[in-house]
Amino acid sequence: MENRPEEHSKTAARGLVLVLTGEGKGKTTSALGMVLRAWGHDLKTAVLQFVKSPDPGRGESLAMQKLGLEMVSGGGGFTWKEKNSQINRTMASELWSQAVEMIGSGRYDLIVLDEFTYALKFGWIDINDVIRTLSERPQGLHVIITGRDAPPELVDFSDCAVEMQSLKHHLRRGIRAQPGIEY
Amino acid sequence: MENRPEEHSKTAARGLVLVLTGEGKGKTTSALGMVLRAWGHDLKTAVLQFVKSPDPGRGESLAMQKLGLEMVSGGGGFTWKEKNSQINRTMASELWSQAVEMIGSGRYDLIVLDEFTYALKFGWIDINDVIRTLSERPQGLHVIITGRDAPPELVDFSDCAVEMQSLKHHLRRGIRAQPGIEY
Repeated sequence: MENRPEEHSKTAARGLVLVLTGEGKGKTTSALGMVLRAWGHDLKTAVLQFVKSPDPGRGESLAMQKLGLEMVSGGGGFTWKEKNSQINRTMASELWSQAVEMIGSGRYDLIVLDEFTYALKFGWIDINDVIRTLSERPQGLHVIITGRDAPPELVDFSDCAVEMQSLKHHLRRGIRAQPGIEY
Repeated sequence: MENRPEEHSKTAARGLVLVLTGEGKGKTTSALGMVLRAWGHDLKTAVLQFVKSPDPGRGESLAMQKLGLEMVSGGGGFTWKEKNSQINRTMASELWSQAVEMIGSGRYDLIVLDEFTYALKFGWIDINDVIRTLSERPQGLHVIITGRDAPPELVDFSDCAVEMQSLKHHLRRGIRAQPGIEY
């Protein structure tokens, strides 16, 4: 323990790996709820967004800034049609390198890899590399990974995995996305 | 519109009724994520907790206090075995009366009725009364209702309903609840 770089950690207990997946709403949102709880407990938190482009007008960006929390956004306007583009692949790899550094740094209690599963699904990042990095993380660090189609290996490795299933969705009925709810 | 008491509302668009249900983790957490987004957008938010007893040590309580947001807790140490107790029934009714006042007041953009479904399930509060109150709410107000076993009438009435299903859970494997994650 004393050799672990955990001087900033307030969570002496074992950190968890949580996976929030499924087609329904609530994956990123649930991660943000844990960020809020963690902030309530004065834990050190960072959010890395793998898909969403930087957009200072989103509620989570505004809130993270107001809370003084770190948020790193990649993806640069990612669209599903571009899944094979070299730009997305490179951006995801660069963000993952940054995540690896942050995960190993011991500076954080909670790191969110938001919409990270797509980078795994499309083969931009190697799942074995991810599991090795998570295995070797500082003991107290929680890592939350969100996104549809989480790979089975990741679910198996995780401590907790939840699938969000949509029972009903207003966006399908033509109601537009609402500030504070969707973004 | 001009007769609606919405002077504090920043959401001109139609408010949504969201239901977060299911057995998995992430119902309250997802609601908290929306509270965080809403706070990022400077929306007026209140959270009413129907089951959890007041506990200033919970992350959400700490965070809500630090953010200056209203949080009202009832339930007073509610346990499942006491579901028929008059105390729980009375407490739920009182909190619901407070919710009705807050919903109708026009002072809020987002109101969370956390773990509210149990009060419906146990018959402490009439679902028809709830749907009438939600139908008559100010146009811009979002209401999020969380808890297992949401009644079908509520799901039907809602704009959006998500079911959280647990794929894997660390608490079942004897890992204790973690600050910042569970509370």
